[in-house]
Amino acid sequence: MPVPPPPPLASPLWRSLRSYQIFGANTEVGKTVFSTLLCKAAARRSPGGVAFLKPVSTGPDNEADDRHISKFASDVSNKTLFQYKIPVSPHIAARVSNTIIPSNDTLLFQCRDYAAQCANIGRKWLFVETAGGVHSPGPSGTTQADLYAPLRLPVVLVGDSRLGGISQTISAFESLRMRGYDVESVVLFKEDKYQNFAYLSEYFAEHHNVPVAGVIEPPERKSSLEEDVRAMSQYYEEQSQDGNTTNVISHLDSRHEERIASLNSMATEALQNIWYPFAQHSLFTGPKDINVIDSAHGDYFQTLAPSSPTSQTDSLLRASFDGSASWWTQGLGHANPKLTLAAAYAAGRYGHVMFAGGIHRPAAELSSRLLKGMNSPRLSRVFFSDNGSTGIEVALKMGLRAAKLRYGWTPEEKLGVVGLKGSYHGDTIGAMDCSEPSGYNEKVEWYDGKGHWFDYPTVLCVGGKWRVNVPEELRQALGEDADFGSLSEIFDVRGREQKGHHLRYEAFIRETLERLQKQGRRFGSVIIEPVVLGAGGMALVDPLFQRALVNVVRKSPDLFRKPNAPIEESPSSPTAWTGLPIIFDEVFTGLYRLGRFTSSSFLETYADISVHAKLLTGGLVPLCTTLASEDIFETFNSPDKTDALLHGHSYTAHPVGCQVAVESVKELQRMDHSGSWNWAKSQGWTTPEASSSSASGQPAVDIWSTWPRDLVEDLSRQTDRVAGIWALGSVLAIHVKDAAGSTGYFSDAAQSLRDGLIAGDAEGVNGSWNVHCRVLGNVLYLMASQKTTEESVAQISLLLRKGLNA
Amino acid sequence: MPVPPPPPLASPLWRSLRSYQIFGANTEVGKTVFSTLLCKAAARRSPGGVAFLKPVSTGPDNEADDRHISKFASDVSNKTLFQYKIPVSPHIAARVSNTIIPSNDTLLFQCRDYAAQCANIGRKWLFVETAGGVHSPGPSGTTQADLYAPLRLPVVLVGDSRLGGISQTISAFESLRMRGYDVESVVLFKEDKYQNFAYLSEYFAEHHNVPVAGVIEPPERKSSLEEDVRAMSQYYEEQSQDGNTTNVISHLDSRHEERIASLNSMATEALQNIWYPFAQHSLFTGPKDINVIDSAHGDYFQTLAPSSPTSQTDSLLRASFDGSASWWTQGLGHANPKLTLAAAYAAGRYGHVMFAGGIHRPAAELSSRLLKGMNSPRLSRVFFSDNGSTGIEVALKMGLRAAKLRYGWTPEEKLGVVGLKGSYHGDTIGAMDCSEPSGYNEKVEWYDGKGHWFDYPTVLCVGGKWRVNVPEELRQALGEDADFGSLSEIFDVRGREQKGHHLRYEAFIRETLERLQKQGRRFGSVIIEPVVLGAGGMALVDPLFQRALVNVVRKSPDLFRKPNAPIEESPSSPTAWTGLPIIFDEVFTGLYRLGRFTSSSFLETYADISVHAKLLTGGLVPLCTTLASEDIFETFNSPDKTDALLHGHSYTAHPVGCQVAVESVKELQRMDHSGSWNWAKSQGWTTPEASSSSASGQPAVDIWSTWPRDLVEDLSRQTDRVAGIWALGSVLAIHVKDAAGSTGYFSDAAQSLRDGLIAGDAEGVNGSWNVHCRVLGNVLYLMASQKTTEESVAQISLLLRKGLNA
Repeated sequence: MPVPPPPPLASPLWRSLRSYQIFGANTEVGKTVFSTLLCKAAARRSPGGVAFLKPVSTGPDNEADDRHISKFASDVSNKTLFQYKIPVSPHIAARVSNTIIPSNDTLLFQCRDYAAQCANIGRKWLFVETAGGVHSPGPSGTTQADLYAPLRLPVVLVGDSRLGGISQTISAFESLRMRGYDVESVVLFKEDKYQNFAYLSEYFAEHHNVPVAGVIEPPERKSSLEEDVRAMSQYYEEQSQDGNTTNVISHLDSRHEERIASLNSMATEALQNIWYPFAQHSLFTGPKDINVIDSAHGDYFQTLAPSSPTSQTDSLLRASFDGSASWWTQGLGHANPKLTLAAAYAAGRYGHVMFAGGIHRPAAELSSRLLKGMNSPRLSRVFFSDNGSTGIEVALKMGLRAAKLRYGWTPEEKLGVVGLKGSYHGDTIGAMDCSEPSGYNEKVEWYDGKGHWFDYPTVLCVGGKWRVNVPEELRQALGEDADFGSLSEIFDVRGREQKGHHLRYEAFIRETLERLQKQGRRFGSVIIEPVVLGAGGMALVDPLFQRALVNVVRKSPDLFRKPNAPIEESPSSPTAWTGLPIIFDEVFTGLYRLGRFTSSSFLETYADISVHAKLLTGGLVPLCTTLASEDIFETFNSPDKTDALLHGHSYTAHPVGCQVAVESVKELQRMDHSGSWNWAKSQGWTTPEASSSSASGQPAVDIWSTWPRDLVEDLSRQTDRVAGIWALGSVLAIHVKDAAGSTGYFSDAAQSLRDGLIAGDAEGVNGSWNVHCRVLGNVLYLMASQKTTEESVAQISLLLRKGLNA
Repeated sequence: MPVPPPPPLASPLWRSLRSYQIFGANTEVGKTVFSTLLCKAAARRSPGGVAFLKPVSTGPDNEADDRHISKFASDVSNKTLFQYKIPVSPHIAARVSNTIIPSNDTLLFQCRDYAAQCANIGRKWLFVETAGGVHSPGPSGTTQADLYAPLRLPVVLVGDSRLGGISQTISAFESLRMRGYDVESVVLFKEDKYQNFAYLSEYFAEHHNVPVAGVIEPPERKSSLEEDVRAMSQYYEEQSQDGNTTNVISHLDSRHEERIASLNSMATEALQNIWYPFAQHSLFTGPKDINVIDSAHGDYFQTLAPSSPTSQTDSLLRASFDGSASWWTQGLGHANPKLTLAAAYAAGRYGHVMFAGGIHRPAAELSSRLLKGMNSPRLSRVFFSDNGSTGIEVALKMGLRAAKLRYGWTPEEKLGVVGLKGSYHGDTIGAMDCSEPSGYNEKVEWYDGKGHWFDYPTVLCVGGKWRVNVPEELRQALGEDADFGSLSEIFDVRGREQKGHHLRYEAFIRETLERLQKQGRRFGSVIIEPVVLGAGGMALVDPLFQRALVNVVRKSPDLFRKPNAPIEESPSSPTAWTGLPIIFDEVFTGLYRLGRFTSSSFLETYADISVHAKLLTGGLVPLCTTLASEDIFETFNSPDKTDALLHGHSYTAHPVGCQVAVESVKELQRMDHSGSWNWAKSQGWTTPEASSSSASGQPAVDIWSTWPRDLVEDLSRQTDRVAGIWALGSVLAIHVKDAAGSTGYFSDAAQSLRDGLIAGDAEGVNGSWNVHCRVLGNVLYLMASQKTTEESVAQISLLLRKGLNA
């Protein structure tokens, strides 16, 4: 077994150690002078307690910054991690130096390691000096502002006092700020001609509430080295005691305390002020149950680690894998700079602009990209709203109206939906009403479920076998459980149709609908989550069953028209809806969550109305789109204003959301087309055996997951604890056996497995880390982003195997 | 009458004129060399068709950039607007030069004017060169990136080829991008040592899809001026024909065409792909009915102006006052850089992070700031959702549950709300269900209104008098219309109570509720929009009536308990709800829209549940908070998970929204406390006469509007067309008389007044401008932001007076 890669990085933060990163507004602005000054001033407060780190240095040894520090601040420990002799940017210096080029991870790990050593031996201050300007490239070529972001050390920005320096300083500040850095202090030389200090101190006070300190310039270079050293020594001696410098140190000291105090008090404050979504507050035992999030980067939160609140040497933060993809939203990693810049661009170009009767570029681009991406002959219109729940309400208003008009129902004849048991479509009343009564809604006062919800066969890997499980009550109609060689075979719906697997499904569905019709039930739409029922308990539905449902409904208008009504005109277009409008709720399942642009493609069919949210913005801001066919759209077209679809939120199609969505969808498509997930696909999912045994004789259906197939199959063999397991796209769902036999959202069965993941690894070489994850009753699921790395998956797989002794 | 200020600025864009702004990544990066090269290369394509503008120049005349251009590109027209002789940043040069310091507006107007002249005389190209770096301050002290943003000229960024230049170039790009600039091309000198060109061309291709052009450096300075000129001439001659330069010109040419093509096609595309909110598509007569928004700044959109699609000299854009405050969301101006940076910071620090059981700084800060700002003894909890409609659903779930449990209603005994006629609380079904049947909801299939909705007296200025209007049907109970000396007197609810004005209101309300109780009606909450019913037609309700409703309900639990039920225990806390939970829908009316932090303060009472959205984020991204009392919160506290408030959207409390909201609320509070609206208050609203005639003997109630009192009173005297008018906070509502007598959302009465505002002023000296506004049936309303200037109000007032001959 290969050595597992080093665990993720906990951001360095210790109570006892005030760590600051020194960035320069430009090269040659005096970073090293200020580092020396700050080191010396800090050392006056804490003799022997100050350390200086230069992760990457370029230039001749005798001019190196660490030498300068040694010379003028001799009681400061100091270290350089990587030294290149050529005075150019590190990415070139590293390349031409013929030595190793450290990866970004290596640099980060070594920085953290040095900080940890400082904390352990009781240092009080650490200054980490970068090279060049904020965006000067590091050895790997990544610019420093991006490279060091996961450390999220608070920053001292050295401003530029030269001509043009105002601009440089503000821009550098903005580049840092938009990457989530806290710039705590700006320092620069006071100089009379350009007066940058005067301008910048006012500017930063007004716009950013950041103090700016001005320090007099170092003496001119003297004629002899000795004189030079003497003059500089004197300068440092004086300036490090000067109020301008000592105030900076005092300020940095307080900001450090405030950061920690805020982290420590936030949970208590939250329990007083916040009313949490989907939470029974009485079950919080105290602040420790609240996940205090300092920041997040890639797949990891940085959270307040469990530790003694007074310990000086416990690391305060730990890396926490975002195992629920932050309620299923994350696709492109937290704090993705591309998405940040997209958001900032739209904010700077528009803010929000009114969408009723208006159009702006981001909405136009997103609409056409989504419609093209869906590649559906039916969908031609995009309606915007704010979240999955509102998008579903829009879909319902569309679908029900269409059915009502075609079949001539009166306003008093309320229509229900046809759906699946355990479905969940959102928290607003209308969305709730299209799910069957359950723990989610039965205590909601205005809930009034309207519809019929089919039970259905599910797919699970059980004891190493891929199985279609038929519920007890349906066995008479649908037959027994059936095993398949692979998940891919189960998803080969056309191949299975050739074998006639769908016939019993279709017969059962038709018979049920006929019975309901005879009972006088009226329906206005089908609404289903294609393939996976998320909130309802991560059920993987046999796609052939959902396909059969759609097909039966479409070919059976007779099941939905009024009794004895004349047969309505056939729709003129072949892509018009028949039977009932079919609504696909792809809020969770769409946009590559299950590995494909649209989860409808697993059913090899097209919806009349399709709802998309969550991954739509890559995991940044709320936005939802409800796509509809022209046929549905035309239903609302009339000379009468009141026939319009009267729905629209204030921030409909807000440019920030649309621009971020354009960027996200584009990036997901790029990853798809460029083979970014080939590593995942090759983890047993697209095996030659699956291909050759494909029932249709066609190439195997392209089914894959971020989670390795052997992990899934191995865990499924722990049949004493695991009822079954499946993985698809970035989702892994472990159905745990509940001793008490209870299942569903309010079961506690998966809790103990979850506890192991939450405990994680407290002894990681890069600090402690764990997996933050959610359970849905007896189901523990893990959801990666679409950017999750093979390494993260390997590390979490080890924890899972450990948790289940597999 | 004072001369009105110059009208707003239309961003300069003409089909025939390719205008580009040249920004430098730093000072001394070669901006003038590149300007000269681009001018020369453009002039080869379009001899005599190129112009160069230097808005602000510093340094001795003989080194001025326009001289350089004259010398080396003599066929290029060129102009400098403001020249200062000292080679320092313009903000200092302007100050010490003892000449006038042009305001930002003056600079922008003159730039536009020069561009307009160029367009009119058939120039093809205009290059506008900035001074120093992107954030170098202009004469007024505003940095150039902010100063020139309203022009939104596309940009050529001159990169920095020196050591550190990679960082400078990327940061400068980001500062421009986050202000909505389109950087179309990066140009810089090719140089071997630092290889910035190689790095940057790869970087911009990968991250931003922007081409980078490298040009060889100019010759070294020669010993004699003559030689120097000769060498430079040769350099320009050669390089302006070199592919590196000519490719830039070709690219800029295509991007210009693409921008215009996109503006021209967007409306057609939108009518094909978009399904508009609250719109009857059949009423769109064609693309001209779609408002094509290029960008927005402050209170103004830049929209595609009506013009011949082939005209070369019509200005393509016009300034359009955002008169609906973009569906009532705008508070701090479009493209406010503070909000942009707040959004970018949160995106860079967190992206979105899961809020269930978690906490992050922006949510913690926002919660405590809102609770403090409300200054209510009742409200203590914050629940987050995405928009007003979802926030109302949350409020309903809270209120109904509380009433159900206290009064012991069973799940089958559905509770209604007590509300006001014409109320509107959102578009999701649950929110719709708490409004009476109307054109907004009666065709929505699952709409099922539950409640009783009171009719009420409204406030209007009619014929110059401030009047409380009692609806015909209520006169017997409530008395006749009553005139007051000022709006402030009407809002003096305590003073009016001392006079007993509330007694008939209270008796009427109590009698009505008694009657309903006898009819077996059951109620679970009161839900009202304090003071103004927005979507229901901008009705200003007599605040005393709403106060009476709250007071009657609170002192009358007997009206709401089950018949013959034992009297429930009195709530233990004095701030617990009594009678029914009172929900205030402040989605539209709160957070200074009506001039105060909370509109509940007009009623001098406190809600048990309060909903806030729209202005919450200052007008940038969707976010909503539902605030609740501890008493309501405790209702959901139980050992049973299923008793929890089961509501929560994926992006609940998304950090971007929360951080922007923190910044917005803080800024609104700062403006309030620093007297930013004193100019508006002094427009007749806080007169001494109002003060002395205050019924309570207290200082006059603080009522004011962005819209001048004399405007309101003058317009109200046009009684042939105006039924009444009111203004409060940033809202002005003109109730227009409808010849046909129809009123409400679907009336067309206000349309002709609106047409005048939409036509605006096509002959403005800064280009054409107009007022984009919405009507609600027979009501034309205008809504300013909280940043709207006295000048904008004066200009629009003139249009309004003209429209109504007042």
